[in-house]
Amino acid sequence: MRLAVIGGLASGPAAAAEAVRANPEAEVILYEQGPYISVGSCEIPYFVADQIQDASTLEVLTPEQFEETRGAKVRVQHRVESIEPDKSRLFVESLVHGSRHEEYFDRFILATGARARKLGIEGEDIKGVFSVRGLEDAVAIKSWLEPEAVRHVVVIGGGFIGVEMADAIRRRNLRVTILDPQGRLMRGVLSENMSTPLIDAVQASGVAVRAERATSVEADEMGRVASVRTDKGEIIGCQSVIVGIGIEPRTELAKAAHIKIGMTGGISVDDQMRTSQRHVWACGDGIEVPRMVDGKKILWPLSPIARRTARVAARNAAGVKPADRFTSVTPSVAVKAFGIEVGSVGISGEEAKDAGFDVEVVQIKHWSRVSSMPGAKRLHVSYVVERGTGRLLGGSLVGEEGAALRADVLVPWIRGGTTVKEIAEEMDLVYNPPIAPAMDPLRVAAAKAIRAISESKAKR
Amino acid sequence: MRLAVIGGLASGPAAAAEAVRANPEAEVILYEQGPYISVGSCEIPYFVADQIQDASTLEVLTPEQFEETRGAKVRVQHRVESIEPDKSRLFVESLVHGSRHEEYFDRFILATGARARKLGIEGEDIKGVFSVRGLEDAVAIKSWLEPEAVRHVVVIGGGFIGVEMADAIRRRNLRVTILDPQGRLMRGVLSENMSTPLIDAVQASGVAVRAERATSVEADEMGRVASVRTDKGEIIGCQSVIVGIGIEPRTELAKAAHIKIGMTGGISVDDQMRTSQRHVWACGDGIEVPRMVDGKKILWPLSPIARRTARVAARNAAGVKPADRFTSVTPSVAVKAFGIEVGSVGISGEEAKDAGFDVEVVQIKHWSRVSSMPGAKRLHVSYVVERGTGRLLGGSLVGEEGAALRADVLVPWIRGGTTVKEIAEEMDLVYNPPIAPAMDPLRVAAAKAIRAISESKAKR
Repeated sequence: MRLAVIGGLASGPAAAAEAVRANPEAEVILYEQGPYISVGSCEIPYFVADQIQDASTLEVLTPEQFEETRGAKVRVQHRVESIEPDKSRLFVESLVHGSRHEEYFDRFILATGARARKLGIEGEDIKGVFSVRGLEDAVAIKSWLEPEAVRHVVVIGGGFIGVEMADAIRRRNLRVTILDPQGRLMRGVLSENMSTPLIDAVQASGVAVRAERATSVEADEMGRVASVRTDKGEIIGCQSVIVGIGIEPRTELAKAAHIKIGMTGGISVDDQMRTSQRHVWACGDGIEVPRMVDGKKILWPLSPIARRTARVAARNAAGVKPADRFTSVTPSVAVKAFGIEVGSVGISGEEAKDAGFDVEVVQIKHWSRVSSMPGAKRLHVSYVVERGTGRLLGGSLVGEEGAALRADVLVPWIRGGTTVKEIAEEMDLVYNPPIAPAMDPLRVAAAKAIRAISESKAKR
Repeated sequence: MRLAVIGGLASGPAAAAEAVRANPEAEVILYEQGPYISVGSCEIPYFVADQIQDASTLEVLTPEQFEETRGAKVRVQHRVESIEPDKSRLFVESLVHGSRHEEYFDRFILATGARARKLGIEGEDIKGVFSVRGLEDAVAIKSWLEPEAVRHVVVIGGGFIGVEMADAIRRRNLRVTILDPQGRLMRGVLSENMSTPLIDAVQASGVAVRAERATSVEADEMGRVASVRTDKGEIIGCQSVIVGIGIEPRTELAKAAHIKIGMTGGISVDDQMRTSQRHVWACGDGIEVPRMVDGKKILWPLSPIARRTARVAARNAAGVKPADRFTSVTPSVAVKAFGIEVGSVGISGEEAKDAGFDVEVVQIKHWSRVSSMPGAKRLHVSYVVERGTGRLLGGSLVGEEGAALRADVLVPWIRGGTTVKEIAEEMDLVYNPPIAPAMDPLRVAAAKAIRAISESKAKR
């Protein structure tokens, strides 16, 4: 069996390696148009901040190391132009030689991933404007910021990439302004109240957060970025612009092969990671996945999910019986920036209402450790709870310590449909003064939700 | 309805307050023989270490504050001598006046707690020998250690109290020796391999851990502790001895009232916290509780469980319908000492085997954060997994960071019978370089368990 894996940045290498493990007799070839495979893009902010010094650290394995240790063949700087699964072939261009040829495969895995979303405004291709996606971006940003000419950087987008990059650039002692249309940070996962402690910390560090939308980017006479214009008519002088407004799946190859694309814009797959075309599987940031609780299809382009879907796609493409199945994703995200930890799991209040749930949204603040202990900090916890059943559907935590890892506890709770009554009354979370109070903030929030639900019932 | 709660340190105040909440018409009286109620004994090591300066911090509420805010009456320095539930009365001695009288009650809650276990060796009542249980102990230890005469302290017992106290005393720049019969630390919850990183850190701080049993304590001519003799014939000169070898339930009052005591030595209760005597409930450190997985009765004298059982006992004694029920305890413990965090949840390999489970015990070490990030540390994780089902029965974590709060995630997993396959393949724990690697140590350990089980099956 010959198996082609197309796309080599995150899920592709995972899928290729897993396919060889599952079926050592298969010949597996991994195609990647760029010069690298297996790149950790989540480390980019820490590389920019000089917390990670060496760019090669971001490259988890070189193509040679990968071939040696994983047993799949690697073709870097090879761009797959099209796949024809019904004819068991693909067309590929070698970007080194410029040559084109066809190759025959029995099965295909699309791991074509996603690209940074563009602003769609004038000037966004000017020198000094960067997105945050690949190793090239990381190196380009860092070399642009290093000369002394850069004093002020505008970060467009208040999502987690924007927040992390703002922190990284601030650590280089440059001035930073974050533009977000609503002047919010991480609004995909934090309610307005919950984002306040983060915004406070960001502003305390000297970074401005402005409720403005960029409308154009302008260059100086050298063709380098000089300013950003906003929808409020402001002109913000700056020497670099970082764009972090999310990603969009790369689906050109799939579309050309008549593979079904979902409502989210991601490649549509079933629970075995099969696309609508026979002999074609897909995985990684380019596909849509069902979320827990209601099965709604979403894009969730984070590395652990890329690996999970890669594993299922690879094992099934390699012919493992019984078939591996993907259940659902429990959306989870954590950020540590500006001395604040943020953790979020499940769905937000807004998403829950959109999905038709009748929910109670509660928020508490409580101590991260026993309050009399040195180092105890206030931790803000918010829960989204279904009124009728008391099930936890989502939760977020914000605080100087103990927020990110506590979010992990929400994963089994939300995935398992655990009720706030069980959480408040039966979950024996660890207790010790330097670690957590006797009534953990996670249980305090559950107790508050119980009271809120019972009060809202009493009112009806 | 008149309700007597006997014992005022941890579960007693919780029960009294909950009973008033559940039945505001009940007259609830809380008896405590000492001068304080509502004392946080877990904070004692931090008070001894001067991390908490003020002894009054350990007293969560004064009797007056409690009466005002909780609505129950408090009788401190009142020792209940006996209860006669069939005659609806108790006999109580006022320790201030020396007077005795009887009082009439419809219902009783025993919250008599536990006392520090004694060594049962000669000399253990010499001045300068302390156990670690109440506020009086805390104050006595601190004033004994403050004069310059104390240079070396022997801590007897390598459990979590012993480790925490050794750390506290070390922070006072005194010499410390821990005696444990097996030269182990936290052996109730950590396997020998898992305890190594903790022992290394303890020894690196200059504290000796000796595999010896104390056989007697000896005094100087002033009647103050001068040395500890051990079963190896050694004489260890010291100016103080701290005994932390566990607790034993106080059951005198229960026994005198012909209330059934369980195999563990704790008061036996049903899932409503009823004792074997009508109209008598019990809660707190003095009772035995069923553990998760197999329902075996254990003593688990930690504050969160004291509160849980207090709540159930109080609500049922107050007449709430339908009755509140206690399911089971998921034993969990966390410690932070000597720069090391320890977390443990569920049952140990030994306990699992004793209970008849066929288990695989695995251990891994993996990074607490992405390995290239500053501050990333090795985290040791051990799992106890049932071979046939793959269910996680217990787990422990040891490391410089990220061990204690990660243990919380094990609580719902162990309680819910989650399999290592689900943990490895489907648990979307948070990922971000400064927080956790893409494959969290908790999932790496699960993957190792899957391989170990499959290898052990292959061998059979």
